[in-house]
This record gives sequence, structure tokens and C-alpha cells, in this order.
Amino acid sequence: MSQLDDVLAHIDADQPQALERLFDLLRMESISTDPAYAAECEKAADWLVEDLKSLGFEATRHDTPGRPMVVAHSGGSGKHLLFYGHYDVQPVDPLELWTRPPFEPMIEDTPHGQVIRARGASDDKGQLMTFLEACRAWKAVTGALPANITILFEGEEESGSPSLIPFLEAHAEELKAELALVCDTGMLDRDTPAIATRLRGMLGEQITVKAASKDLHSGAFGGPAANPIRVLAKILAGLHDTEGRVTLPGFYDGVADLPAEIKAQWDALNFDGEAFLGEVGLKVPAGEQGYSALEQIWSRPTLEFNGIIGGYTGEGFKTVLPAQASAKVSMRLVSQQDPMTLRAALRAYVESCLPADVTVEYKPHGGSMATELPTDTPEFTAAQAALTEEWATEAVFSGMGGSIPIVGHFRKILGMNSLMVGFGLDDDQIHSPNEKYELRSFHKGTRSWARILEALAKA
Amino acid sequence: MSQLDDVLAHIDADQPQALERLFDLLRMESISTDPAYAAECEKAADWLVEDLKSLGFEATRHDTPGRPMVVAHSGGSGKHLLFYGHYDVQPVDPLELWTRPPFEPMIEDTPHGQVIRARGASDDKGQLMTFLEACRAWKAVTGALPANITILFEGEEESGSPSLIPFLEAHAEELKAELALVCDTGMLDRDTPAIATRLRGMLGEQITVKAASKDLHSGAFGGPAANPIRVLAKILAGLHDTEGRVTLPGFYDGVADLPAEIKAQWDALNFDGEAFLGEVGLKVPAGEQGYSALEQIWSRPTLEFNGIIGGYTGEGFKTVLPAQASAKVSMRLVSQQDPMTLRAALRAYVESCLPADVTVEYKPHGGSMATELPTDTPEFTAAQAALTEEWATEAVFSGMGGSIPIVGHFRKILGMNSLMVGFGLDDDQIHSPNEKYELRSFHKGTRSWARILEALAKA
Repeated sequence: MSQLDDVLAHIDADQPQALERLFDLLRMESISTDPAYAAECEKAADWLVEDLKSLGFEATRHDTPGRPMVVAHSGGSGKHLLFYGHYDVQPVDPLELWTRPPFEPMIEDTPHGQVIRARGASDDKGQLMTFLEACRAWKAVTGALPANITILFEGEEESGSPSLIPFLEAHAEELKAELALVCDTGMLDRDTPAIATRLRGMLGEQITVKAASKDLHSGAFGGPAANPIRVLAKILAGLHDTEGRVTLPGFYDGVADLPAEIKAQWDALNFDGEAFLGEVGLKVPAGEQGYSALEQIWSRPTLEFNGIIGGYTGEGFKTVLPAQASAKVSMRLVSQQDPMTLRAALRAYVESCLPADVTVEYKPHGGSMATELPTDTPEFTAAQAALTEEWATEAVFSGMGGSIPIVGHFRKILGMNSLMVGFGLDDDQIHSPNEKYELRSFHKGTRSWARILEALAKA
Repeated sequence: MSQLDDVLAHIDADQPQALERLFDLLRMESISTDPAYAAECEKAADWLVEDLKSLGFEATRHDTPGRPMVVAHSGGSGKHLLFYGHYDVQPVDPLELWTRPPFEPMIEDTPHGQVIRARGASDDKGQLMTFLEACRAWKAVTGALPANITILFEGEEESGSPSLIPFLEAHAEELKAELALVCDTGMLDRDTPAIATRLRGMLGEQITVKAASKDLHSGAFGGPAANPIRVLAKILAGLHDTEGRVTLPGFYDGVADLPAEIKAQWDALNFDGEAFLGEVGLKVPAGEQGYSALEQIWSRPTLEFNGIIGGYTGEGFKTVLPAQASAKVSMRLVSQQDPMTLRAALRAYVESCLPADVTVEYKPHGGSMATELPTDTPEFTAAQAALTEEWATEAVFSGMGGSIPIVGHFRKILGMNSLMVGFGLDDDQIHSPNEKYELRSFHKGTRSWARILEALAKA
């Protein structure tokens, strides 16, 4: 047997103990957004420091104005990797929708097999422990890790990461590595492992259209008085054409066509857009015509309306002409689309739509470019092969519709790319009641990292 | 001196006592919408019954499932007229915005002269008392009224008049007259008396557009998932053209052109649309191009958006794709526009805008045709001359942007037209804190009715 086979065998044998450790961590109520749970967050950070020390890491808890960071170094030679995860979890309300206490982890049988049920089981305690268990196995079997590993565990990921950027900047030298490993994403489906390589950027703008100095009676003023809802509806309605394309001038500047080989890969996935939409009561992809649902989410930019309000919105009728109406507009960006340029284009368009007497106010929100990671490096290729070996299904380079800000920070502040590998499933109910992580995800996730570590060391 | 001169002189001399009587009525907290004030409404009804008896009327309080009606008959010969007013008032909150207690009436000096400050001073206690004081003066001076007068005072006008239609139907024979007199409207301006002869009809529809079975994450679903706000914006934006005309097929069917002589009258008013809009921070008439602001309000139909809501509307951003979005749409109707036909047209249009996966639900509200009263009858001509004489400014036949349902009921159930004369001013703050009625309105209003009664008797 190879060394790796021994490591994998050790992982299999050690599963009961590995679960005990994960359960210890899951019992800590490390909700970061609520100061009442600050001590629980510190407890989780301390537990991780101790566990890392038991693996031979030099581990330190770094207090911040918010929740502590945990940083650890294995030292040693070989490729230098930074592993990132977060030990904080989402709040648990509505508590009454949980079938069991969220911080009393338990193995449950389900039609899909056994699952670990607890807040944080998937996001992100179960995921980060897959990496630590892989390290533990390597250490137990060989006495050393296959690479020089630095660990960063954050405790504020679920509450906007207020301490993260200053911490990365202050500890840039200590945290810099050749490649970051991020375990906070998911599988493509139950059997197909994925490396997320495309994340969309984001840009939000709240648009408030104002006319009269107060709400008016539509009998007395209906006709001559400008109606902000009408103006806002015209603004929003003018932002897409009948083909689902965004009409904002310059919107598609910098949007690269999907490389043919990636498109071929994605087509080979046989992603069932209808089934995907069917889960939420829809059927027909409503986005840009000429693109599959998968392409629309993973590779195309969007402009969406997230909220709208104006006038009387209670029961029954009040025939007011409102003084103002407001909409929240957001864009998901890809390739080289520039959020600042697009914010300016949106504002210029809005202003071109304003009739006499109507003014507009804006509230900007966010503004981040898309991230596209190179997939043709030896590391990505090696990781893909390792995942494929473990799952016996070819690992895919996937896109993600949303954003994972840490990846942008690592690139910008620490100058390194991120390998995003995770074992979550779409139905893990992260951020919702009854979160779970499949036992298979935990077990094969651990085995996957054991393989990836060896593969990267050799890459 | 003529008999009328004696009556007018009596009114002038009796002003202090007339004010005392009005103040007695204003002290009653006859808020109809709140059951806690039911006894106060009954007190006001009883007070009116007693006052009418003192004028020689045969007066009766009729209890209803809601607040009482007061019906009274003068008997006698001459033209048979029905006078309508309402003794109930709007609630007073927010009480803290009143400069003095709303049910402790007081004369206040203002830059425009003295005003009666109290809830109901203008709407409608002060107005209805102008008519009773005119009757009192006729009775005091001549021993009789110049016409056969029936009185109907309602106590539910400010709470939707739930008992009105059944009451009118049950007492149709008793209430039928040659002409109704309604004192619940206003002057054109401080110096120009008006007879309201055009009221717009109304039609409301709440449109709720639904797509996914729940709110979605715009990262995960943005693109392929239908967005109800986007669909709703397209629906609303398609309802007006760039000239401000409503594009709904058939919308202008039955809309009559304004007769040339009425247009000439209105043009002669030199109504300052810019000043009218200036009061509420606007300047440029936003309605149908080619029509003045006055024509837009008095003679043209409108389609307005009174409220809209969907998705996340709190502080900051949530990048949801909402499951639904909803708008309240209302139309003001003129001439022969048919509300039921237009509701069907609106729904057909909405359905023509729905893409795949999107459904719609409606909640209808109201639905009344416009009222246009004939102005070329001897009664209207006589009343106009009487008002002109009193105010030394030519009385106008005015339109109203809103609706006064009683006028439609009188026509439909009792088969008679209504002469709408009132002395309110735009700044009377009816329905708002610090309601007032100008002392001049009360005094010259009383004199106006004294003149109108004689003029109608002779017409």
C-alpha cells in the first residue's frame, strides 16, 4: 500500500473519533452576529487552537475588535498552503422550526443516508474539520504533513467580516502562501465534486424617486401631479429588452465569452435547468435568451430588482399619489465588468428618465468585481484529479452565482489564488433551520483533502 | 327693503347666536369610525333633531345598524328640496399636532381673517349649519320657509356610509324631492363661489404578480428565475405613452370632449396650474399633454399608481428575488367610461404581459361611473345667479377630481339631481389636524343659502 492508502485507511478507521471532535465543536454556540454569544465564539477559537496544537501546529488566538481569529503554522518544507475556514455560525431562529436543539448535534437517518444535524454542521464547522482530520491522518500515519500549511480560521464570516481586511493587511507577511485552500462551497450534485473557479461580482444601488413634497390625493391631483411610482416603473422597465438582455449602455463591456472548453465541460454536466427551477415552482429560464440556465448563473451578468416600495401598501385602498418611490437594484458581474463604471452608467440612465419636477436620490451598496480563477495551473489540475479519484466521478470546474469575498481579499491583499473545494449539498439548509451535513460529505471530504494535499505537494 | 334683504339683515344680526349654536354642535365628539364615540354621535343627532324642531320641522332620529340618520320635513308648499349634510367627523389623531383641543371650538385671528378652529368646523358641521341658519332667518323674518324642505343628516359619511344605501332605499318615498342640495364641497378660491357639477368616477385594482414559490437568492437564481418586480414594472410602464395618455385599449371610449362653453368658462377662471402645483412642491403639469391642469383634474380620466411593494424594503440590501410584487392601480373616470369594462380591459392587458411561470391575482376595489350634472336647468342658473350676487364674483360650474358618492345614490335611488354648493377652502385642513372654517365662509355661506332658497323657489 502507498502512504496515501495508509492515510485513507486511517481516516476510515478514525471516523468515530473524528465525529466526536466535530460534535465538540458543534456544541459551541458560536453565533457571531449576537454579542450575547461572544464567549461561545471565544470558546470555539480556543478549542481550535488546542486541536491545532495537538496536530503539531504552532497555533495562536488573535483577538480583534470583534471575534477572534485563529492562525496556525505547521512549519516544515514543501509547498506553502493557506487553509481558510470559519468557526462562527448563523443565528438559529426561528428556533421552533428546528426538529431538535441546534447545538446538540446528532446523527440522523434520512432517505439519502446518514446526516449530521446541527447548526454549523455544513457551514462551516463540518467543512473546516474535513481539512483538520485530513491533516491529523497524515500526521498520524507519516509523522508529518505533506506540505507547509498555514491555517486561518475566522469568527465573523456570518456577520460581514468587519475585522477581516484589517487583519489580513496587518498579518500579510505571516499569511501569504503559494495558494489558498477554501472549504466553504459545495458539490455540483450528490456525486460530482466541484472546484469553484468563477464567482460573480456584485453591485447594489437603491434608487429613490421623489416628486411632490408630500403624499397627494389622487382625486385632487391625479393627472397634473407627477407620480414617482410611474416614473420608477418606467426606469425599471427600460433596463431589460425583450430578449432578457440588460439595456444599460456599456453593460456588456468587459464580459468575456465563455471559453469553448469550459462551455463543453458545462454542457457535459447535463445540468437540468428545468429541474433546478422546478424546486422553487418555476420552469422556464427567464434570463438572457441563447444561454442555458447554468450559463446564466455561472457566466452571465444580471441586473435584478430586489425590492420596491412606494405609496400605500396596506390592506384595501388609499388613493394617494405618493411623494416618493424606491427600488433596490443589484447587478451580478462577470469577467472584467467594472462596478464603478456600471454604477455611473446606471445613474446616468436613471437621470435620463426623469421628467420635470422629479428628482432622484441614491444609496450605493457594495461594488466588487467578478473573480475568475485560472484552471490550467498544475495545482488546479492536480486537485481536480485527486477529487475525481476519490469520488469516481470527474470533478468539474464550476461557477457560482454568488460571491465569496475572501477569495477577492486573498488575491488583492495576499496576492494568491484560492482553490475552492467543498462538500456541501444544495439541500444542506445552511442559514436555515435543521442544517445538516451528510456523513458522506464529512467522510469523503476528509479523504478528498488527504488526496489533494498529496497531489498539491507533488504539483 | 325686500323680504330677502330683511332675511340677510337678520342673518347679520344673529351671527353671535348662530356661532353659539355651531359651537354647541362642534363640542360633540361625533367621530363615526370609532365605536367608542357612538354616544357622542347620538348626542349630535339628538341635538339636530331638537334644533330642527325649533325651526318648525317635523324631525325624527332614525337608528341604523351604525350611527343614526336625522330626517326632517318642513312641509308647506313650493318647490320640494332635499338638503343633505353629515354630522359625523374624522378622527383627530395625531392629537399632538393640534394647536388646541379639537373639540373646544374657538375663533382665531389669522392673516386671512377670523376662522373657526375645531374638528368638523368645515367638514361638515359648519357647512350644514349654514343651511340651517338660512332656514332660521327665513322663518324668523317671514314665519315660513320659501320652499318645502326635507332634511337628511347622515352620521357615517366619514366611515364609508354603510347604512346609507339601505336607508335611502327603505325611505325612498319619504326622501324623494325635486332637487337635492348638498353642502359638502368648496369654493373655487377665496372669492369665487362654485357649484360642483362634474365628479369623476373611481375604479381600483390591486395587482399581485407571483413567480417562484418563495423568495430566492439573487446569486443562486438571478438570471434564470423570473422576477415579479421586473414583470410588474413592465406592466405599469406600459400603461401610459410619452404624451401622458393611458394606453389601455378602449380607455377613452365614452370620454366626451369638454363642451366649448364650459371650456371657455374654465379658461376664463385663469386657474394658475403652476401655483396649484407649487403648493406641493411641483411645477409642470405631468398629465395628458394638450390639456390644462384644471382640465386634467376636472374633465379627463386618469390611471394612477397608488402603491407598490415587493421584495426586501428595509434598510440596506438583501439580494432576494422576491416571490411576488404587488401594485395598487386606480382610475378616475369621466363621462360614460364604464368601470366594469375598464376593469376587464386592465386585466386582459396585465395577462398579455405575463411571461412563462408568472401568475397574477387581483383584488378589485370600488367601481363607480362619473357624474355630470346638467348646468342649463332653471335651478342651476338661479343658484348660480344667487351665489354671484352674494359674493360679487361670478359663480362657476366647477369640476372635482374626486368623488362624492351621495350624488350618485341620489340620482340612482331617488331619481334626482344634486346642487352641490359649499364654502370650504382648499386650506381648511379637513381630515387633518387644526381643521378650520373661515368665519366669512360661515357668514356668507348662510347668506348664500338664504339667497339660493329664494332663487330656487322662484325658478
